[in-house]
Amino acid sequence: MVYCNFLIITYNSSQQLITKGELHMNTTESLYEELRHSLKDHQISNNETLIEQHSHDESYHHPSAPDLIVFPESTEDVEAIVKIANAYDKPVVPYGLGTSLEGHVIPYDHGITIDFSQMNQVLEVRESDFLVKVQPGVTRSQLNKELKKYGLFFSVDPGADATLGGMAATNASGTTSVKYGVMRDQVRDLEIVLADGEVIHTGNLAQKSASGYNLNSLFVGSEGTLGCITELTLRVYGIPEHITAARASFPTVDDAVEAVVSILQAGVPIARVELVDEPSMKQANLFSETNYKEQPTLFLEFHGNEPGLKHDVEFTQEIVRDHQCEEIYFEDDNAARNRLWEARHNLAYAFVHGYPGKKLMVTDVCVPISELAGAIKHAREKVNELALHGGIVGHVGDGNYHILLMMDMDNPEEVNKAEQLNEQIVQYALARGGTCTGEHGVGIGKMKYQEKEHGNALQVMEKIKRALDPNGRFNPYKLVHKREENK
Amino acid sequence: MVYCNFLIITYNSSQQLITKGELHMNTTESLYEELRHSLKDHQISNNETLIEQHSHDESYHHPSAPDLIVFPESTEDVEAIVKIANAYDKPVVPYGLGTSLEGHVIPYDHGITIDFSQMNQVLEVRESDFLVKVQPGVTRSQLNKELKKYGLFFSVDPGADATLGGMAATNASGTTSVKYGVMRDQVRDLEIVLADGEVIHTGNLAQKSASGYNLNSLFVGSEGTLGCITELTLRVYGIPEHITAARASFPTVDDAVEAVVSILQAGVPIARVELVDEPSMKQANLFSETNYKEQPTLFLEFHGNEPGLKHDVEFTQEIVRDHQCEEIYFEDDNAARNRLWEARHNLAYAFVHGYPGKKLMVTDVCVPISELAGAIKHAREKVNELALHGGIVGHVGDGNYHILLMMDMDNPEEVNKAEQLNEQIVQYALARGGTCTGEHGVGIGKMKYQEKEHGNALQVMEKIKRALDPNGRFNPYKLVHKREENK
Repeated sequence: MVYCNFLIITYNSSQQLITKGELHMNTTESLYEELRHSLKDHQISNNETLIEQHSHDESYHHPSAPDLIVFPESTEDVEAIVKIANAYDKPVVPYGLGTSLEGHVIPYDHGITIDFSQMNQVLEVRESDFLVKVQPGVTRSQLNKELKKYGLFFSVDPGADATLGGMAATNASGTTSVKYGVMRDQVRDLEIVLADGEVIHTGNLAQKSASGYNLNSLFVGSEGTLGCITELTLRVYGIPEHITAARASFPTVDDAVEAVVSILQAGVPIARVELVDEPSMKQANLFSETNYKEQPTLFLEFHGNEPGLKHDVEFTQEIVRDHQCEEIYFEDDNAARNRLWEARHNLAYAFVHGYPGKKLMVTDVCVPISELAGAIKHAREKVNELALHGGIVGHVGDGNYHILLMMDMDNPEEVNKAEQLNEQIVQYALARGGTCTGEHGVGIGKMKYQEKEHGNALQVMEKIKRALDPNGRFNPYKLVHKREENK
Repeated sequence: MVYCNFLIITYNSSQQLITKGELHMNTTESLYEELRHSLKDHQISNNETLIEQHSHDESYHHPSAPDLIVFPESTEDVEAIVKIANAYDKPVVPYGLGTSLEGHVIPYDHGITIDFSQMNQVLEVRESDFLVKVQPGVTRSQLNKELKKYGLFFSVDPGADATLGGMAATNASGTTSVKYGVMRDQVRDLEIVLADGEVIHTGNLAQKSASGYNLNSLFVGSEGTLGCITELTLRVYGIPEHITAARASFPTVDDAVEAVVSILQAGVPIARVELVDEPSMKQANLFSETNYKEQPTLFLEFHGNEPGLKHDVEFTQEIVRDHQCEEIYFEDDNAARNRLWEARHNLAYAFVHGYPGKKLMVTDVCVPISELAGAIKHAREKVNELALHGGIVGHVGDGNYHILLMMDMDNPEEVNKAEQLNEQIVQYALARGGTCTGEHGVGIGKMKYQEKEHGNALQVMEKIKRALDPNGRFNPYKLVHKREENK
């Protein structure tokens, strides 16, 4: 009987042919059995530890467990899983490494979580084309290790060593986006398994195209709500001939931010520019045992040829001095550069370490660069008013900043204050032409701001969701898919 | 009676309330009358000369006349026009300056052409944010004239002095895209009038966002099939501190293309790199009265600071010499640089001038850069085999090239040969991971290749079209909207 169902499901190209009535087995147990006919035993699990691990991400959002976790090893596996999910009317949530920060991968309607960790091959490096083809479970550091052999690197660095599938699904970005762009700018082609189990390619290998609607950019950042990414072709870059890093301290955050605006206006092609405020510098010194000046600090990086960089560095020195910079250190040496960046990279850990028992909550808005100084000042005032503990850091070249808050999640008053703060900084950003999320994405946490931010355009997004996933199969209750509307 | 209809149409927010049956006036005359209630007399025309002018673009595609042309002066005018078009079930075609090359603006189902020439204001320059807000009828050169006052420039240069609305609609690109990206990369926000007459904004003013589906990139390149662009917020750049141009001659096209690949691989940040082949150089010399070496030639440009450029230029000299470059000239001076680029920019005119009575037909494919030398060699062989007259030029840093063909449109054999050539170069590109159009777009000319290029993804595009424009109101029979399926 089970075998018979398996045959029907696997060999019919369209899942519409199979109705629930025909199957009479709409339970997790029979779903498990069904999956066993398409996948190997070790590819399916309802092990308690694994279920727990896949019931949350790195955010403070409340957990919810999947019924089952599957570990596909090929696109064909994913097609089979989606077709079976359709037959059993079970939701599907794609999962990379669970490093999302707004509850993206939490299966609030349970069902099947597809863990892509076994699809982790770098499939092809096209050196002359500056392209690489990877499976979605490849991590950023794994890719960069492989690319180093070719003198190439992948530019997007969100901090976490996330999977590339997850980074594409959430349009990740980070410290280098000011020069190289965000994840969306790197995606040349995606292989996607759609809600009906069909496979498409969203792009091609050419550097540019004016053919058809741009599906690459639609699927990047769609947070697993429109399809499962099963392969990515990504743009990569030659490792720069020369890199210089710098650390510059300022008396106020305003001075630091205004210095960044001046650097950008002067056309200096900075590759990274990160702001770390005074409380964050204190935390960094405590954690990293450094004795950096405890003032608002810019961490900068320049990529290029040596004489060009020398000129950029001199120009930058003049600019930061015009903005009351009190100390600037440059580092050309690789090891020294790494030490310099360590303080910035370890900041989240530094806060976690400094506030034992508390949980980290990170806000994430982005404003036009001319509004950044005001936005950060407003944020610091609100943090102080609410007597919260936290630092402000930011990819300030993009107008994107975060508040790192240390929260006692068992203290409802504190949680309430943090939510108030989040609300206030989002409303501040939206009122000034900004966005409720610069890089973390919508997930469950930013859904409440979608209508305010997008207005009528949200209905266009909802129409697209309904057109491509009419049964709400993929990642339910996320992004545009409100809980009250479905099921 | 007419006035009464006008009231119904204007004050009902949804055109669904008005049925054709209620109106009893589904003729061009009554449509004209209806429009006169929402627009001023001078904003509507069926003048014969204007009708003829709006019945074609710059391509060889056969003309078709609109019933009427309207000249909106505001977003509200466009909303009213679309609502009236819905009430009368008339198609709507947005029109910039008619410089499209694949029949994009030809109204094959007649109806209303919306000419945006009266919406031509630069609305705001946000200097510190590197942003500008414009109406869709502003041309590229008009914008650059305004931006120069601020030390800024708009980077996309497709050759023609097109409108920015048209450039966004077709995802235009050109000589500078190798460094600054294509039109899609510059669009921060669009105001769009949708098929139901509602107005949306597709983005915001922040440099990056991870909020919601990316509608900016969906509407850019949708060729007026999903909505009318009524306002654009675009990214602009600081005018580079220093610019150097160069012209380098090579014994073969292969050598020139391989030199470009090496320059890119060496990480030299070239701002332009254009290939002009031997027949095109001959034509340029005839037209511009220059005596440039009649060999495959690269025109290059470098933007940056002076010492950085000096290093880039020296490095580039070494690279091109390794690829048999026989002559390389550099020009720092503004006037000399302009002269150097003139030969490239006037090439299309040079061919038109050299073949009186013939019409220019331009092909446009894009391949991965590693396939470019082979693709251009194949193209030259096919041009020679078919005994056609034309030159090959290309934005070779992007893998994008064109064949400029001089055609006698009254000679069916010649037209047939040109179509054969187009077919062959498109199939060659598609077989190698390329695209049927790098920058000219689909329009009517590249529709036949959409299925081959996009496979199942074409159905996703069709679903999006149906979801956003269920009645096929906007620019019928273009991009994904096949004639046989509708009406």
